[in-house]
Amino acid sequence: MATLMENEVFKAFATYAAIVTLKMMLMGPVTAYFRITRGSFSNEEDVARKTDEEKKKLLRAHPDVERAQRCHHNDLENIVPFFFIGLLYALSGPNLTTALIHFRVFTASRIFHSFAYILAFPQPSRGLSYGVGMLTTFSMAYNLLSTVFVL
Amino acid sequence: MATLMENEVFKAFATYAAIVTLKMMLMGPVTAYFRITRGSFSNEEDVARKTDEEKKKLLRAHPDVERAQRCHHNDLENIVPFFFIGLLYALSGPNLTTALIHFRVFTASRIFHSFAYILAFPQPSRGLSYGVGMLTTFSMAYNLLSTVFVL
Amino acid sequence: MATLMENEVFKAFATYAAIVTLKMMLMGPVTAYFRITRGSFSNEEDVARKTDEEKKKLLRAHPDVERAQRCHHNDLENIVPFFFIGLLYALSGPNLTTALIHFRVFTASRIFHSFAYILAFPQPSRGLSYGVGMLTTFSMAYNLLSTVFVL
Repeated sequence: MATLMENEVFKAFATYAAIVTLKMMLMGPVTAYFRITRGSFSNEEDVARKTDEEKKKLLRAHPDVERAQRCHHNDLENIVPFFFIGLLYALSGPNLTTALIHFRVFTASRIFHSFAYILAFPQPSRGLSYGVGMLTTFSMAYNLLSTVFVL
Repeated sequence: MATLMENEVFKAFATYAAIVTLKMMLMGPVTAYFRITRGSFSNEEDVARKTDEEKKKLLRAHPDVERAQRCHHNDLENIVPFFFIGLLYALSGPNLTTALIHFRVFTASRIFHSFAYILAFPQPSRGLSYGVGMLTTFSMAYNLLSTVFVL
Repeated sequence: MATLMENEVFKAFATYAAIVTLKMMLMGPVTAYFRITRGSFSNEEDVARKTDEEKKKLLRAHPDVERAQRCHHNDLENIVPFFFIGLLYALSGPNLTTALIHFRVFTASRIFHSFAYILAFPQPSRGLSYGVGMLTTFSMAYNLLSTVFVL
């Protein structure tokens, strides 16, 4: 156990994985902020104290809430594979410099992706940051499977 | 390897992580139950043996199915970060008592959250259980990053 | 660290977990393919260069895109628990032959599931492959909790 957290690559993975996971978690409060400021809820019990007429208005979808949800969902679809592949890659004994490049490029690409999504930057900024993150994970998967392959 | 599963903190993490993952998996059958009893499906092939008129009715959304899906989705958004942060936290050598409090509070908050969501408890019960779970994960992340931080 | 990747069960888990994660990641490009060929987008900025009339058409949902998204989402709901339970199970010292059966059956069931979903195979092919994958994960969870249980 102690050995894992004495390893520089694993410590770097732990740091970047925690940062990118916290970033993903922040999308929850961001969605809640849009729900409250835009008045857009999904559950009857969330608007229980309002009049019937107000309820009807508040239980509608709002584009800003849906945008935040799509951003959150895209994080799940990309940060989950990064963690899975990255954890196994970090345990497969890669070079520290190479590993750091992968972790840093991925983390930067996902932070940029969130701004590009929420603030609706013109394309291809969002598409490119999505692609860079995905390629980083593919590169770690390639390195992992070159080292470890037991079918 | 043996060393990991001889560590009390890691064994506790494995137990609570398995429980909370199984709880999340159960949302699949719960959604299927609502699909069948409420007659609400998403795919043509799921209602292939019905008449055209029946198909039309069965391929509509139903609020109970959508509620179960939102609950399942909220689990993904919260249990995934718990596992990521919790695994790294468990490996960073925390005190057993402190670690157990984190794992137990999180597990209890998510089990309560599912009942609050599916049975539509009056707010703020669902909101509070969501917040408690999230704060537990933030606390583990803080402890992890105080111990391990390699940028 | 070195010890983990010298363990045959862990190496097998790393291999199958990477394969099934890459399979899940491929659903992103598959969805993008359907978005482009069917002309169905979610964000204003993705169709910025089109005329107003074209935009209106392109910002509609399309059943093929929604099908790919449901398939991707189902992967998240099932491959995430497999990774969580499978990782802890692999660390709990199972028999190599038993572990390999679990990893292979799960991987095969999810690859079949994706074809069944995207190509709309007649039921119960999709339902069965979903069930087989889920039972495999339940079986690993049972084995894990029989070995390691610290509440």
